[in-house]
Amino acid sequence: MTRNTRSPVELPAEVSVINVGLPLFADALREQGVPVQPVDWRIPAGGDLDLVAALEELYGPRSDAIETANAEVLRRLNEGVPQLVDVTPAATVLSRLPDLTLLHCGPALDWNDVCDPLRRSMRAAAVAESWAGDVEAADRLLAEGAIGLEPAYRYDTVVPMASAIGPSAPLMVVDNTAGNTRAFAPINQGPGDTPWFGRDTPMAIDRLNLLQQIAGPMLRAVVQATGPIDLWALAAQGVQIGDDMHMRTQGTTSLLVRNILPALAALPDDGRVEFARFLAGNHMFFLNLAMAAAKSVALWAEKVTGSSIVTTMCRNGTTYGIRLAGSDKMFQSPAPPIADALYYEDYGPESAAMDIGDSAILELVGLGGAAAAGSPAVAGFVGGTMADAAAITEQMALICAGRSSRFKLPTWDNAGTPLGVDVRRVVETATTPRITTGVLHVSSGVGQIGAGVASAPSECFQDAVRALAAHRP
Amino acid sequence: MTRNTRSPVELPAEVSVINVGLPLFADALREQGVPVQPVDWRIPAGGDLDLVAALEELYGPRSDAIETANAEVLRRLNEGVPQLVDVTPAATVLSRLPDLTLLHCGPALDWNDVCDPLRRSMRAAAVAESWAGDVEAADRLLAEGAIGLEPAYRYDTVVPMASAIGPSAPLMVVDNTAGNTRAFAPINQGPGDTPWFGRDTPMAIDRLNLLQQIAGPMLRAVVQATGPIDLWALAAQGVQIGDDMHMRTQGTTSLLVRNILPALAALPDDGRVEFARFLAGNHMFFLNLAMAAAKSVALWAEKVTGSSIVTTMCRNGTTYGIRLAGSDKMFQSPAPPIADALYYEDYGPESAAMDIGDSAILELVGLGGAAAAGSPAVAGFVGGTMADAAAITEQMALICAGRSSRFKLPTWDNAGTPLGVDVRRVVETATTPRITTGVLHVSSGVGQIGAGVASAPSECFQDAVRALAAHRP
Repeated sequence: MTRNTRSPVELPAEVSVINVGLPLFADALREQGVPVQPVDWRIPAGGDLDLVAALEELYGPRSDAIETANAEVLRRLNEGVPQLVDVTPAATVLSRLPDLTLLHCGPALDWNDVCDPLRRSMRAAAVAESWAGDVEAADRLLAEGAIGLEPAYRYDTVVPMASAIGPSAPLMVVDNTAGNTRAFAPINQGPGDTPWFGRDTPMAIDRLNLLQQIAGPMLRAVVQATGPIDLWALAAQGVQIGDDMHMRTQGTTSLLVRNILPALAALPDDGRVEFARFLAGNHMFFLNLAMAAAKSVALWAEKVTGSSIVTTMCRNGTTYGIRLAGSDKMFQSPAPPIADALYYEDYGPESAAMDIGDSAILELVGLGGAAAAGSPAVAGFVGGTMADAAAITEQMALICAGRSSRFKLPTWDNAGTPLGVDVRRVVETATTPRITTGVLHVSSGVGQIGAGVASAPSECFQDAVRALAAHRP
Repeated sequence: MTRNTRSPVELPAEVSVINVGLPLFADALREQGVPVQPVDWRIPAGGDLDLVAALEELYGPRSDAIETANAEVLRRLNEGVPQLVDVTPAATVLSRLPDLTLLHCGPALDWNDVCDPLRRSMRAAAVAESWAGDVEAADRLLAEGAIGLEPAYRYDTVVPMASAIGPSAPLMVVDNTAGNTRAFAPINQGPGDTPWFGRDTPMAIDRLNLLQQIAGPMLRAVVQATGPIDLWALAAQGVQIGDDMHMRTQGTTSLLVRNILPALAALPDDGRVEFARFLAGNHMFFLNLAMAAAKSVALWAEKVTGSSIVTTMCRNGTTYGIRLAGSDKMFQSPAPPIADALYYEDYGPESAAMDIGDSAILELVGLGGAAAAGSPAVAGFVGGTMADAAAITEQMALICAGRSSRFKLPTWDNAGTPLGVDVRRVVETATTPRITTGVLHVSSGVGQIGAGVASAPSECFQDAVRALAAHRP
């Protein structure tokens, strides 16, 4: 409106309002029947002046250098071609692994800080390694430090949920030939009574033995028969059939099984049917393959220096850690609860362990929360409609520097999934990555009690922004 | 507007227009910047006075009886529980099948009227049955009537595309225990050089031998090991992962394969790997299972008399036939071309055979076109977006009497797929069923040349309406 000084002020009969920021005003106007277009504006960096200064530095004088680095990181995250090439015990491929040592999810931590589900998983692994006769003896060895702990990420390995693995656990070897990088992940243990869900029962320990004695050798024979298996080609099909590739991998697992069926049928009698039963009962089988594939690509991307894009994101149930490309520094926050979750009957948030596992690597490569918009399964955990699932992906788009050209979502206008979490955007918008994940019991050893979508904590991203701004190249 | 006789006519400054019927007026207004809300209104029954009178009868005095019958038909179409229970040569289960006879898709027809792709399929089947030494000899036997032709529907059997099967072809036996009905379908032949695509090469004939000697016995052993396989439970999962279950069954096929994996692994050495190779290479494997399942349910529904719902819909490449529940009368029209299709390179509509196969049974039970809204694969053939695919399902909703409570589409507000094609609605709205299907070459024997969405012809539905109105119970 222009001001009219010649006559009494005339108010317009109709107004339309654009509301920026807090919704209270908009709500008040809406109650009076006034149309309102809300804009989700927030004070940058929550108004923290140090952070605002850091962002001004990173978006200002440093912007060109960062954008150049980020473009190369995005290219690598997008163009990696991870392939499953072998399956072999950890000890045979991780030459630096010390004796009597377990690899675990998330950042490094001391036994005293290990959460209950991960403790149970460590005990089960120690028994499966025959380092202890039972879980009580394993607990003593762990408590007195006779068994060492190493975070898996230091060995280019990713392990899901509350996983701990010993040197005889079979690892799937994934090569990203485009970047000459190699990553590892254990075979997914499957649903139910299994250590990665924080169980240490005799049956859970048996599962580790099955992986070591049957699944590992059988899967190795399959890969030797088929040759390298292109994992992103399968994952690209999978996101088109409702897999977000984190919370749900059922479609991709089934596609893979059908692809390798001739090699499965040609396996020797000794173990073939047992391995087939394991695969038939494990709808999460592809999860660990997707994780190793993501890690192999992230290892290539993280060789780029001066970028603001996250290339490590992992949790151990106690702490949550991220690293930026080109840096060894792990920024940590306390592991958060899983905010939006559905629980199995008789369970609720009060029984839930904190967010755990290395699987959050998936959210860094355009999968998991980034692919939620294509997944009815995710929708079921966040409100029920595809629009609810799309809101998760929209949040990821807000903080990502690019888009995948491999993972496209028919239900999201055939657009590529958001790719490359930029700490600057995370801090600027006060929006942290959304991670589709399972929920474990905090203490009882009952295992999985639900699933949902976690939000990463903000402090570690803020610390990363401060450090990036402080570190002048 | 009310008329104002006291002053010169005042036209309103702004108009909004609701346009009913032909879009020409709306287009003209839109060009002048006037907002228009189109209503897709058409003259009922195309203005045909006989048809309008028939509809007045069926929606008027006969309405209550028809609605009662339709409700029971819908209940049966919705509540059937089809299970795969056996696999066995046609001759062992179709006791009425005469010697030296082939079953073919669609309505009955004479050899002279058989289209080229189906002729080739018949020749291949005759050679596979060892009735002839080569396809030329088979052609002579067929031309002189030494080999008889019977439509598969008369034997509660459904065969896809240009299928013709002899007595040694293995049939999958599907029981709908809820209705005590049983239907049959051959094993899907797979993509490529195969008779159901209208090919009669030595390799195509070999495929029939593989089905008879390997796939049939192996699949039978699997079913004996697993027990009955609940086909709609799999199909319900399948429509949630992008299968419309007609044009695309890749997801459901893969789910099935993973489910039966332990039984596959336990098959005898003789044939196991060959069968595994066949399954791995056949993404259409579930199509024929879905068809037999649909038929077993339709056989239950068609026992209800006095209904206006279609329970048979099939094509032989020459004619298109439908039957209503409770009636043996096959209403026929010339088979139409597939209107909305994408063609392989070097092919186009001029090379296309007419719509063919019994697979249109799927559109009667809430699958195929009725499930298009959930299928990115269908979207790819009709415009590219999920909205384009949803338009197909919306058209089916316009002519269907109910909704499936089994097949629900996450991308369509989690609604059930349209179920039960009502001939009254088809004729009233001049909207015929939309069928997602493949396209074969009209004459060269090259096989499949594209895929798309066909519209059923209208005459057979009009004839059915006239006959239903004329036949007073």
